[in-house]
Amino acid sequence: MKEVMVNASTSYPICIGRRLLPQVGEEIRKRVEPCKAAVITDSNVFGLYEKEVRESLKKAGFSVCSYTFTAGEASKQIRTLSDILEYLAREEMTRKDLIVALGGGVVGDIAGFAAAIYQRGIRFVQIPTTFLAAIDSSVGGKTAIDLEAGKNLAGAFYQPQLVLCDTEVMRTLPQEVFADGIAEALKYGVLGDPSLFAAIAAGQIWEDLEQIVERCVSMKRDIVEQDEFDTGTRQLLNLGHTFGHAIEQKSQFTLTHGHAVAIGMHLIARAAERKGIAMSGTAKTIQQALEANGLPTESPFDAKVLAEGTLRDKKRRGNTIQFVFPQKIGACQIVPVAVEDVQALAEMACAKEGECL
Amino acid sequence: MKEVMVNASTSYPICIGRRLLPQVGEEIRKRVEPCKAAVITDSNVFGLYEKEVRESLKKAGFSVCSYTFTAGEASKQIRTLSDILEYLAREEMTRKDLIVALGGGVVGDIAGFAAAIYQRGIRFVQIPTTFLAAIDSSVGGKTAIDLEAGKNLAGAFYQPQLVLCDTEVMRTLPQEVFADGIAEALKYGVLGDPSLFAAIAAGQIWEDLEQIVERCVSMKRDIVEQDEFDTGTRQLLNLGHTFGHAIEQKSQFTLTHGHAVAIGMHLIARAAERKGIAMSGTAKTIQQALEANGLPTESPFDAKVLAEGTLRDKKRRGNTIQFVFPQKIGACQIVPVAVEDVQALAEMACAKEGECL
Repeated sequence: MKEVMVNASTSYPICIGRRLLPQVGEEIRKRVEPCKAAVITDSNVFGLYEKEVRESLKKAGFSVCSYTFTAGEASKQIRTLSDILEYLAREEMTRKDLIVALGGGVVGDIAGFAAAIYQRGIRFVQIPTTFLAAIDSSVGGKTAIDLEAGKNLAGAFYQPQLVLCDTEVMRTLPQEVFADGIAEALKYGVLGDPSLFAAIAAGQIWEDLEQIVERCVSMKRDIVEQDEFDTGTRQLLNLGHTFGHAIEQKSQFTLTHGHAVAIGMHLIARAAERKGIAMSGTAKTIQQALEANGLPTESPFDAKVLAEGTLRDKKRRGNTIQFVFPQKIGACQIVPVAVEDVQALAEMACAKEGECL
Repeated sequence: MKEVMVNASTSYPICIGRRLLPQVGEEIRKRVEPCKAAVITDSNVFGLYEKEVRESLKKAGFSVCSYTFTAGEASKQIRTLSDILEYLAREEMTRKDLIVALGGGVVGDIAGFAAAIYQRGIRFVQIPTTFLAAIDSSVGGKTAIDLEAGKNLAGAFYQPQLVLCDTEVMRTLPQEVFADGIAEALKYGVLGDPSLFAAIAAGQIWEDLEQIVERCVSMKRDIVEQDEFDTGTRQLLNLGHTFGHAIEQKSQFTLTHGHAVAIGMHLIARAAERKGIAMSGTAKTIQQALEANGLPTESPFDAKVLAEGTLRDKKRRGNTIQFVFPQKIGACQIVPVAVEDVQALAEMACAKEGECL
């Protein structure tokens, strides 16, 4: 088992290993004395892993209840949050008890948010069951729900007690779901690790999964520790996300987060190259790595729709939006773009080679 | 103008004075550069003060929008919160903008909570318009909504940039609403200031209002600074609140917070005396002070209903509930009471003089 320590406003370990699920109770008990644990999960994960987690928790001395909501991004909204909070109250959970978030990014985000605000904060443990959740939402303490007006528009910064990543669980994911994680892992490569990028582009992800998860988590940890509350360098993590979020939302979530980020990353690389920020060939290299892993790279929406969606993004600061532009594989920079220039940027990003700009 | 500095996870001043409303824009600009300000208020306060606040903000260079919800505790729920969040998103509020909570405790609690979670936190200023809100919810950074299962069961610890208390506004409150604040002010007296208690009991509140607000706010500030996240001594502030919350809720909020706390304070004093914790006569002294100010002192519910409501309280820690018992006017102590003993305590608290226990 590998362990990455995160030192945010609270410190906690991220444990990464094969077949961790049967040990979760034991691992949690090392940091949390036995109490009542509410497992929050979704309708996909419940049938697969809830029993194993429940039994492990019970064996370790926890009393366990569990709440399941309908799987999917559409559940990441205030109605589900309200249902979870009322459930916790009906179960008479107190501030001394524990929430266990078992599932992908949606479960982690909403269960973490519920933990942040139920009785103004009770402890929680994250057990990400997707590759994407393991390397993205499980580090950094960002919890959230979507509003009608946009993704992740309400939430809290709230750190878990512990994160447990079972890579065996990730290996059983459908290829498309696994690919969401690949898009995010490639992002870390573009941000600062050319050899990680090359390994994933070459399809070496399966044999090295524990190491790749550890590498991505460590990179995110390093960035988050510098800027827990997301006011500066942490915005680097938004590479591919500014256009990506807009695409995800405009598709009404028929495109997943990872797939939308894949497109967003390619688009912003293409724009960066055309603006002279990125080295020539960067966009092509990113495109090939994404496509080799079955990920999309072109926007299903035109530049106008993309720009309109982007202007709703919460990364907007008054009259500018922070964009992360690749300079080359392994280096990026944050550039504020004026609201009135977003449309032109979207056009630059969307136009395929040889098309008029 | 009096100023009390609060040094919590962020530092901010509480300004207390007559006729502050026309200056709020100017006062806020001392701490927040002009930006977009969303005034959140309720249907009672809107017609009285929104225009004055809006104009003052505009004069100081802020652009202003405002959102009004139906007045009353029944609005302090997740549906209203959701409406406020969607409103802020529609208004394209960003993390650099400002929420101005203009109203009583309900407005402060829900607008503060919206500020805490909108985009994971934007700045807010509190302008309490009731005596109770000025001395209670405006200090300490507790924001919340009620759940179906109980009061304040979801929320966040979140500090404002500034609190502005206009005592002229408080002087125009209906007597019953003003009395809610008196109950809370008497609580501070019981907790640690016999002369404050005596002054209020003797009806000297009107002439000394600025000073009394300053004294209560300073006492709360001192307690909160010791224990921002409510894990220890801050629980002293719950004097009268454990039974009080149960009564408020069982009455379906036909009894106001202050009136319910008045009853809760008298009941717990009577129980404390009967348990030998409080000096003889303490309960009677409290009862007389409350009644002199038009406040109720006896529970409209029997001990069984009271105990049942109390067991839902979030101050419950597993198998015990923390109660604050007066020892005398000016001194209290926190005592954990086992869940199975709450019914007996409620009986002791409810039985009038001469009734069998």
